[in-house]
Amino acid sequence: MIYLDNCATTAPYGEVTELIKKEADGGWYNPSATYAPAIAASKRLAEARKTVARAMGAAEKEIYFTASGTEADNIAVFGGNKNKKGVLICSAYEHPAVYECFTALKNQGQTVHFLPLQADGRVDGDALLSLLTPAVSLISVMHVNNEMGAVNDIAALCRLVKSKAPNALFHADGVQALGKVPVNVHAMGVDLYSVSSHKIHGGRGVGALYVKNGVHLKPHLVGGGQEMGLRPGTENLPAIMGFALACQKIDLAAMQRVSELKKRFFHAVSGGLSDIMLYGNIEEAAPHVLSFGVKGVKAEILQQVLSAEGVYIGRGSACSSRAKTSRTALALRIPGEYAEGTVRISFSVMNTEEEVDKASALFTEKVKLLRRM
Amino acid sequence: MIYLDNCATTAPYGEVTELIKKEADGGWYNPSATYAPAIAASKRLAEARKTVARAMGAAEKEIYFTASGTEADNIAVFGGNKNKKGVLICSAYEHPAVYECFTALKNQGQTVHFLPLQADGRVDGDALLSLLTPAVSLISVMHVNNEMGAVNDIAALCRLVKSKAPNALFHADGVQALGKVPVNVHAMGVDLYSVSSHKIHGGRGVGALYVKNGVHLKPHLVGGGQEMGLRPGTENLPAIMGFALACQKIDLAAMQRVSELKKRFFHAVSGGLSDIMLYGNIEEAAPHVLSFGVKGVKAEILQQVLSAEGVYIGRGSACSSRAKTSRTALALRIPGEYAEGTVRISFSVMNTEEEVDKASALFTEKVKLLRRM
Repeated sequence: MIYLDNCATTAPYGEVTELIKKEADGGWYNPSATYAPAIAASKRLAEARKTVARAMGAAEKEIYFTASGTEADNIAVFGGNKNKKGVLICSAYEHPAVYECFTALKNQGQTVHFLPLQADGRVDGDALLSLLTPAVSLISVMHVNNEMGAVNDIAALCRLVKSKAPNALFHADGVQALGKVPVNVHAMGVDLYSVSSHKIHGGRGVGALYVKNGVHLKPHLVGGGQEMGLRPGTENLPAIMGFALACQKIDLAAMQRVSELKKRFFHAVSGGLSDIMLYGNIEEAAPHVLSFGVKGVKAEILQQVLSAEGVYIGRGSACSSRAKTSRTALALRIPGEYAEGTVRISFSVMNTEEEVDKASALFTEKVKLLRRM
Repeated sequence: MIYLDNCATTAPYGEVTELIKKEADGGWYNPSATYAPAIAASKRLAEARKTVARAMGAAEKEIYFTASGTEADNIAVFGGNKNKKGVLICSAYEHPAVYECFTALKNQGQTVHFLPLQADGRVDGDALLSLLTPAVSLISVMHVNNEMGAVNDIAALCRLVKSKAPNALFHADGVQALGKVPVNVHAMGVDLYSVSSHKIHGGRGVGALYVKNGVHLKPHLVGGGQEMGLRPGTENLPAIMGFALACQKIDLAAMQRVSELKKRFFHAVSGGLSDIMLYGNIEEAAPHVLSFGVKGVKAEILQQVLSAEGVYIGRGSACSSRAKTSRTALALRIPGEYAEGTVRISFSVMNTEEEVDKASALFTEKVKLLRRM
């Protein structure tokens, strides 16, 4: 079986699984309790927080653990929306965990502008500039697009925002960026930045939100005061430890090899097939995501046919798997005959050249077959 | 080491840890994806949902997995508060995960009544009756109090509410009830009921919310549409599988033995010490929680002294461990000289008679020592 799907390429590292096992055996003490093994647990929690902070270029006290990237995004947007009269801006192709927050605020009567994309899938800086006024209170632009891998220049966008909309908080969803491209929240200048453990092979059920020192959010979830009052609930230490270990294992040099796998796959497929439309810029995109439209083929059927052969590819996002057409394809105004054949192929350090060669040959063969039917 | 603390008596069953390990190895497929191993994962998710539903007397489609009991409580209260002009009622001793939601809504300008308690720690039904009008939109009363184990007659309270406040949703926080006392949401007639995995030895990082068929909540967290749109984020299948296994292992007959351990401890301590004030009714309280005030001793110091001897007891709730005095003690108007010596001793099926005898002897000895100092 060959996994070239974003959901599958998020398998935890073997070492992470071993650590989670060990923690599940003995690491269940409540870090908020006050007896000796619990205090030891709270020290491991502090160490993990330092490790995750370091991976993002943040300070320890700026990191808040959550149960997922989705939860981090919700806390960032709803918690950052302190001025109900403020104008909100969100890019037109955010992950649903961000996009649906802004849609909810729009439905509550707030002004929300959805930013258009350039042909390469990145946010249009001129369009952003035209919307910036001191009335803008919150902006969210994802660092790496989950469906096509386009990398936004968050540092440049953030500088623009800070100069023209000085009252705005800048949130970037970094779920697809951490471990794939350089991430340094202090250097980028963002106020809020979301990440997720399982997207960096760190196991399921934990994420984190960076909140810049001095920025205060309105709590979106309330309770026992854990995570400095921002994310209540008993700390999930085994999962947090796995996340920290995956952060330690981040290796951007290894992502260069992943980028070569991506290009090798696309070269083989586009060499063997006509009417393939690449979305975005394969050189400038993040190393792990490849998205293109296959004319005259329904992606859902292609996915099933390849699945029967043990090759697992994605289309759009699993989080949007109920949607008929990729929202990114819509935002990019991809012609319908390509849009319905939109596939998203994901690569990880766990994939090999042999897998890529076998998968690209099968992909080409099956597209030809489906086009003849 | 002897664990008589609620945080420690929540250790996962060995079998649960084994299952979580197995799932962590191979169970990381995204149940929302559409290829074969992911579909198999979605089937395991459906089975787990059935198992958890059965343990609560609910139907499969009425169970929504969350990341914690806290999150279930937040979704219930904020999501159930659809009428911003509705009157809200919450008992004065709810867990912070519920209490703080109502406090936040009160701070936003909504009318919130906090119900007083009877001397036995249960909600005062007459006080509730006096507040019930058709303007009431949401009520929350915990099934078993986490700090003193008092068991509310949720079925009777719910009948009262449904007859006098027909527009109100009734939420019960059952985090301390599941696995300890009989739980049947259909028989009780509640609209919403929260539970947590780690409180029934099912591992960390997962809870569930029962939402009665026909009741619709306003989503509090938004995103990829998982959990029928009520709780987005990739499903944490390993943790959910552990939760379901712990639900299968619920054994109320075994809790009878736990109740005997509780009474054995209190009999020994109250026999050996003067000026002990039991909170509530030891026979009628839930089997696993014992709370009492020790006159002339600060609970924090007693906890530290016992911790040094390897005996771990609680005081109040770890979720409120920053608070000086137990909120329950305040609600019950316990005299200050007892209130500051409030301890909460928790018992589980993992405790033995030998542990109880050793711990009660040490407890008595250390209280005598501290009283002489």
